[in-house]
Amino acid sequence: MRLWLHSGGAFREAGDEVRDFLGATHRVLFVPYAIHDLDDYLEKVRGLMEPWGFTVDSTHETDDPQAAIADAEAIFVGGGNTFRLLDRCIAMDLMDPIRERVAAGVPYMGSSAGSNMASPTIMTTNDMPIVYPPTFEALDLIPFQINPHYVDTDPESTHKGETREQRLNEYHEMNELFVLGLREGSLVRREGDEVELRGTIGARLFRQGQEAEEYVPGDRLDFLLDA
Amino acid sequence: MRLWLHSGGAFREAGDEVRDFLGATHRVLFVPYAIHDLDDYLEKVRGLMEPWGFTVDSTHETDDPQAAIADAEAIFVGGGNTFRLLDRCIAMDLMDPIRERVAAGVPYMGSSAGSNMASPTIMTTNDMPIVYPPTFEALDLIPFQINPHYVDTDPESTHKGETREQRLNEYHEMNELFVLGLREGSLVRREGDEVELRGTIGARLFRQGQEAEEYVPGDRLDFLLDA
Repeated sequence: MRLWLHSGGAFREAGDEVRDFLGATHRVLFVPYAIHDLDDYLEKVRGLMEPWGFTVDSTHETDDPQAAIADAEAIFVGGGNTFRLLDRCIAMDLMDPIRERVAAGVPYMGSSAGSNMASPTIMTTNDMPIVYPPTFEALDLIPFQINPHYVDTDPESTHKGETREQRLNEYHEMNELFVLGLREGSLVRREGDEVELRGTIGARLFRQGQEAEEYVPGDRLDFLLDA
Repeated sequence: MRLWLHSGGAFREAGDEVRDFLGATHRVLFVPYAIHDLDDYLEKVRGLMEPWGFTVDSTHETDDPQAAIADAEAIFVGGGNTFRLLDRCIAMDLMDPIRERVAAGVPYMGSSAGSNMASPTIMTTNDMPIVYPPTFEALDLIPFQINPHYVDTDPESTHKGETREQRLNEYHEMNELFVLGLREGSLVRREGDEVELRGTIGARLFRQGQEAEEYVPGDRLDFLLDA
């Protein structure tokens, strides 16, 4: 299984990482449903990825998205609202086709909501629950949760809303899975049984009942697959 | 119907507002389920409200929470995680008992998640979806949505996660209800057909397809009941 799961937020600077991950593959199938305006989103992603050397098709431009997934050389699930993304992918019966292709070795790229989607559930999304999906269970391509756009607590802030760390602690009051907080610019890459933290900045790992731990780009995180 | 819906975040400074709202009522029934440690939460709320002159009971300290609600002189639903709060109130069959008492004139106070709960749905919460509730439909004591802890967009921020305004715009891509963003320190008070913005700071109103509008403490918002 080959996964490339990005924090969101610095995708524009990730061209070399994307090229390194996709290698000889130059055609990407984009899954845009996290965003409301699908055409506009596709245009933006094409504007970024075509200069990197990729041809980008989108599931929303075909009459048969399932067939497009079955034929895809690489799948890229983009960011936006995770609830909307999950709800639409379920409604369109795209979950199993994506799982099957990724299990067969087709590389999966996710950014932000697309990284939440690769997790067992969407329970560590930062997004607003603007639609009620039939479940919070997601693609389950990894056995741990990703929290994209991870932000450290600002000691100067007077805002009393929960900090990100408080929110993830709340998650662990109710759930046991490990959560990897990806700061903007960080990403995890999975190649079979190997997991590596990559990108330009570190990540923070949260485990139930334990102190959070820091990891830096280049660190191997294979242990997350056995968690 | 008498409602007092607080932004969260500056509750400690709201003693005079609470006294003004509750008048001759000095006994409050607290609904603590948004927080994991119920005893600790109750102790904190008692520490705040007893000096203001209130006796605080909690639904979690009685064997019959429904009876406690039926007998309550005032109900206070506290903040924390809105998904957990809704999930537990539904599981404990507390939704209709609260609705009935509030419809009968018992004053309802909400702070943060407790204000989300008074809305038609919890779709404008800021919280992490740490548990999957059987619905996003909430108490529906008002016909508009509240977004607590509302924060303005920081023009200096380099963070690429969605701003609050972007999140509320996403809500309006999928939903039509008005959303009142309560900055920390602001609150709305409903007395029958009258709605007043109160507290120490203004609020921002979001409507589908329209520019957001600012309101200041003292403004009447009765029109929100006809929206």
